[in-house]
Amino acid sequence: MKRIGIADTTFARVDMAPSAIRALRGSGTGFKIVRRTVPGIKDLPVACRQLFELDRADLCLALGMPGPADLDRTSAEVASQGLMLAGVLAGKPILECFVHEREARDARELAALARRRAEEHARNAYALLFRPQDLARRAGTGLRQGFADAGPVRPVR
Amino acid sequence: MKRIGIADTTFARVDMAPSAIRALRGSGTGFKIVRRTVPGIKDLPVACRQLFELDRADLCLALGMPGPADLDRTSAEVASQGLMLAGVLAGKPILECFVHEREARDARELAALARRRAEEHARNAYALLFRPQDLARRAGTGLRQGFADAGPVRPVR
Amino acid sequence: MKRIGIADTTFARVDMAPSAIRALRGSGTGFKIVRRTVPGIKDLPVACRQLFELDRADLCLALGMPGPADLDRTSAEVASQGLMLAGVLAGKPILECFVHEREARDARELAALARRRAEEHARNAYALLFRPQDLARRAGTGLRQGFADAGPVRPVR
Amino acid sequence: MKRIGIADTTFARVDMAPSAIRALRGSGTGFKIVRRTVPGIKDLPVACRQLFELDRADLCLALGMPGPADLDRTSAEVASQGLMLAGVLAGKPILECFVHEREARDARELAALARRRAEEHARNAYALLFRPQDLARRAGTGLRQGFADAGPVRPVR
Amino acid sequence: MKRIGIADTTFARVDMAPSAIRALRGSGTGFKIVRRTVPGIKDLPVACRQLFELDRADLCLALGMPGPADLDRTSAEVASQGLMLAGVLAGKPILECFVHEREARDARELAALARRRAEEHARNAYALLFRPQDLARRAGTGLRQGFADAGPVRPVR
Repeated sequence: MKRIGIADTTFARVDMAPSAIRALRGSGTGFKIVRRTVPGIKDLPVACRQLFELDRADLCLALGMPGPADLDRTSAEVASQGLMLAGVLAGKPILECFVHEREARDARELAALARRRAEEHARNAYALLFRPQDLARRAGTGLRQGFADAGPVRPVR
Repeated sequence: MKRIGIADTTFARVDMAPSAIRALRGSGTGFKIVRRTVPGIKDLPVACRQLFELDRADLCLALGMPGPADLDRTSAEVASQGLMLAGVLAGKPILECFVHEREARDARELAALARRRAEEHARNAYALLFRPQDLARRAGTGLRQGFADAGPVRPVR
Repeated sequence: MKRIGIADTTFARVDMAPSAIRALRGSGTGFKIVRRTVPGIKDLPVACRQLFELDRADLCLALGMPGPADLDRTSAEVASQGLMLAGVLAGKPILECFVHEREARDARELAALARRRAEEHARNAYALLFRPQDLARRAGTGLRQGFADAGPVRPVR
Repeated sequence: MKRIGIADTTFARVDMAPSAIRALRGSGTGFKIVRRTVPGIKDLPVACRQLFELDRADLCLALGMPGPADLDRTSAEVASQGLMLAGVLAGKPILECFVHEREARDARELAALARRRAEEHARNAYALLFRPQDLARRAGTGLRQGFADAGPVRPVR
Repeated sequence: MKRIGIADTTFARVDMAPSAIRALRGSGTGFKIVRRTVPGIKDLPVACRQLFELDRADLCLALGMPGPADLDRTSAEVASQGLMLAGVLAGKPILECFVHEREARDARELAALARRRAEEHARNAYALLFRPQDLARRAGTGLRQGFADAGPVRPVR
């Protein structure tokens, strides 16, 4: 039985965890979900560390939604560096699923983007733990999470 | 009995610790407060490390007020990276409560913002230690500290 | 028998691993290749750590293709910092082979650049493990990966 | 008997250590000073690490003067990150006393600023080790090092 | 017998190691030189770690020449952060000797600058290991590597 950690925030304006959990359950079985909710994205790295160490997670999904201000962008970068540090120290994957408010044009699009991205990262999480060959087969094919896939480069002949 | 560490600075222009302490005491019991005051925000990460290791804190609140200059902004980023490092290494939360001078229009607003933000981070600190289910229930609801909550995204139908 | 790790992504729009593997095999023998494919560039540092620790790699090639957006550039920087951390902690080389979409004018050039760069980093990987004297002989000669070599500076007399 | 480490550089254009030492000795007794001079600011973090580990310092003052060029500013940021790392790993304070050339209008002001800032950081160093209650009493009062204090915010009524 | 590590790259367009070695040998005796050449500046931190751990170096010189593009500048920053990490973790000095192409107006100046800077960093390396009092005597005197010294600030009276 594997354990998948989900770390999310009260700052985000869309509750992405249910979408992620639904996509995980739709992908297969053999895992248990453990979850920690923290105030903001800069609290996610410690939450992941605790999910790894206290809750024995094998992989974490870090769900966050940086705000639109300039300072929020800096916060997102520091949060990413922290997730990197926590993942490398643990030697276990942390899939960062951040949705920046400015990626969407309006509320409807933001909510839809956040849910799709959470689902697609959740499917990647499942694949990393249970079906790594699925990722290997799609190496270099231009997959995206939340938006349409960019697809592989097809040089004009 | 849990221990909550408060690290703050002589550089800040508003004394945020009393607001934080009041909000902690108003949230419940079962904790002791330990405090270290340092010169500036870049000294907060070591103060938190000492609060964790020497004073056995279970969580830290790091209160700081970066100045308005360009160099201050870089300092704030380096301080954030340091708080991230200290938190991840300890595996314990450090709630960063920074108020940038340029977030407020005047002195009155700055003082009010700093106090409200310190209170709201303090309530989050209490919840993280004693009532994590309160945070989980509010995941993805757009909470803010110091300003009005952004609220959840409600897509137009 | 040495082990060379290859970490790559499903986000990249060109599958660089076959080019790297072909160049490695063309360089000599005495090694086994181990590979991990992850979703995006920020997942490469943990993949390298796992290649070092779980798959006993002696060196890693990290193949990635940051997208053209501004946020992608920040992601690339955080990914680089993570690869640095993973390499320094392991004390083993991670050759970062990133191809930024904006480095090429069109799809044809992007595909060609990505393949050449992967090949040339792969030859460097082989040299680092088996023929370090080849690198020492070319110190300070302005070698490039993917584009024409810049060559050594020849001062005008 | 405590030990205070001073790390400084040959790059700086003002010799700040004598000012710092004078201010330390004027603050009280009970400490011994150990000093390491390195070429530039990026060498200060290792110097502090050596002061902690080889010279058994309990706290370090890192004195540096970044140059006016754009590259110097990046160097200062990397040096700050290194000081943060060294301090957090040791769990001991490193007071960063940097004077940027562009903070002063001319040579006279630069020299005066550097000396005052070194003195005031030195007094903070003494307080951190011997009189932490002095810092706690001045929390949130807008103290500055080298320039006039900003003072606490007094909201207009 | 001390050991001085030299890490350099095939990317650099000037072979700086011979200049550094000549300056080291001209400074005195009592050391052995160990060298590792890697592809680019981002490979230098692991090379230094290996020089410290596998080759028992007491200090490293890291010689690199970032290219003129914007991405090269980001690479240089990440490389500097990596050298910082490797130095602090080892507790041993790494003198970063980087020459940015845009620091010189033409090829002749670039070659001359690179050689002088390598020589002067090499003399600093020797002083750090064998004659630290020479550095202490020149603290705060505005020394530069490669360009004319800025000199100490002499306030107008």
